[in-house]
Amino acid sequence: MGEIFVGIDLGGTNIKIGCFDSNLKLIRKISVSSDVEMGPEAVIDKMAQTIKKLLADANLSLKDVPAIGLGTPGPAKYKEGILIAMANFPKFKNVSICKMLTERLGKPIIFDNDANMACWGEYAAGAAKGVKDIVFFTLGTGIGGGIISDGRLIQGADGNGAELGHIIIYPDGRLCGCGQKGCAEAYASAAQTAKRATEAIEAGRPSSLKKVLETKGQITAKDIYEHLAKGDKLAKEITDETAKVLAILSINMLHATEPKKIVFTGGMINAGNLLLDRIKYFFDQYIWALKSEPVEICFATLGEDAGITGAAALAQYNCRQTS
Amino acid sequence: MGEIFVGIDLGGTNIKIGCFDSNLKLIRKISVSSDVEMGPEAVIDKMAQTIKKLLADANLSLKDVPAIGLGTPGPAKYKEGILIAMANFPKFKNVSICKMLTERLGKPIIFDNDANMACWGEYAAGAAKGVKDIVFFTLGTGIGGGIISDGRLIQGADGNGAELGHIIIYPDGRLCGCGQKGCAEAYASAAQTAKRATEAIEAGRPSSLKKVLETKGQITAKDIYEHLAKGDKLAKEITDETAKVLAILSINMLHATEPKKIVFTGGMINAGNLLLDRIKYFFDQYIWALKSEPVEICFATLGEDAGITGAAALAQYNCRQTS
Repeated sequence: MGEIFVGIDLGGTNIKIGCFDSNLKLIRKISVSSDVEMGPEAVIDKMAQTIKKLLADANLSLKDVPAIGLGTPGPAKYKEGILIAMANFPKFKNVSICKMLTERLGKPIIFDNDANMACWGEYAAGAAKGVKDIVFFTLGTGIGGGIISDGRLIQGADGNGAELGHIIIYPDGRLCGCGQKGCAEAYASAAQTAKRATEAIEAGRPSSLKKVLETKGQITAKDIYEHLAKGDKLAKEITDETAKVLAILSINMLHATEPKKIVFTGGMINAGNLLLDRIKYFFDQYIWALKSEPVEICFATLGEDAGITGAAALAQYNCRQTS
Repeated sequence: MGEIFVGIDLGGTNIKIGCFDSNLKLIRKISVSSDVEMGPEAVIDKMAQTIKKLLADANLSLKDVPAIGLGTPGPAKYKEGILIAMANFPKFKNVSICKMLTERLGKPIIFDNDANMACWGEYAAGAAKGVKDIVFFTLGTGIGGGIISDGRLIQGADGNGAELGHIIIYPDGRLCGCGQKGCAEAYASAAQTAKRATEAIEAGRPSSLKKVLETKGQITAKDIYEHLAKGDKLAKEITDETAKVLAILSINMLHATEPKKIVFTGGMINAGNLLLDRIKYFFDQYIWALKSEPVEICFATLGEDAGITGAAALAQYNCRQTS
């Protein structure tokens, strides 16, 4: 067995861990609850123990592992290995997570934003494999982003680059959770797409989604696509606004770092061509008339494994850079 | 005398050439008319002869020069050394400008977009000296851009990155020369700032600029700042819209590549704090509430020498990378 790379995707709910061979083939993976309410020491103990168990179960040992990749949500000082905070978990404040994990495992930790890790995963082994210039969007509660330019992650001066959901699409538009108005995230995340539908129905717009709202008390992005598929007019209008915002966001990033591929991920991509075709339609409508090299807009292929794949792949990449 | 680096800034009107020592100190520079109507062979002959003359006048020779940097407007295949076109000059089509210049001078040519070169100049020796993450905007007839991330120019998959003037600020807004609607350039370039003032006056808005329009037949950005300084209300409104668009453009780029410095250049920066303070004001108004590391917004310092400085500096950088 050659070198093994471990990737960790730490979220507020679950810790996902995978071990990969040097071709980035997944050998074995595991998901355990994060138990963040136990505080940083206990959570990092659990991460270390889970890695050891995962390796043992695969008949591997830490000796085979040159480095471990770790992705977490921000805000963090990624370059310094410090997790500044985790949303809703007050016990996580300025945690030297890399140092603490290295103390337990004796391995260097490659630390980055979870969206950057997923982006790197799609680049290393997924939808954008081998494409050196890409832009990546995760459509969830918010919109996360990742940029790879000439085969390098754009991390930003303080590790907070590629916050692409907060690019302003409509100045003075909808209020975003970040305090800005008109962010892409305030329209086109899964959560805000659903919220716009709810608002429209509450404002009296007719829609087959009204019954969903009355029955379940809420509407999800999934509901919207199901009703879109059945021909609901409001669902189409809401989806089109999401697609238009994502298209303009894509155009803006094309003019910034000129990717060859633009990759979307998150539960919303289950809508398939009902969403993808509309993003492409609005992209063609709004892009300049100047002749440009073609850019491909597509959906991610690694699904929930993108984060652990990217973390392992970035650990491997860093080993190669420094060796 | 140590190594000498030559930088060329080829525009539709003038060819500017400078020779620099290894500390990027300007030794001597020259500007000659481009005479692009003579066609590529003659223009490239002229460039080569002017470089030889410039070096001779400084008691230097080509033997001291390891590489030459060349900046031109696009569209070009920068990586392949081919100038695809020059605006309004039909004789320049698919010119292998690097090969032709190397044939005449026997030196490697480092070729990039003129705005990228000016950006690199400000990074190597100007307003952003030593700051490894910057974004740069040139405010002229259009808005050009440059991005440096972790000390590297973002060139894009096909060398057409950092077309920052075409980031869309107002979807479905003013028509831009590129065919898109609502580009930053359609509002905040020097030319469009002046045009918006002209349109407002023609629509009947009162302003002390009306007399300028009647007397000179046109209004320039310079006129607007002169009348702004004297308290004209329309001049303030026009300037504020320019500043707001530039602020939102800056915020969007902050969320993309997270620069530490955002640098503006072009004739419009002669307005000084009348413009800079308003850009900063709108930046603070529109930026998110999340705590971020500070970013500095400032004006460039190299003026018209930024292009030749950056071209020489990039030639030097490439020599160091490959040696």
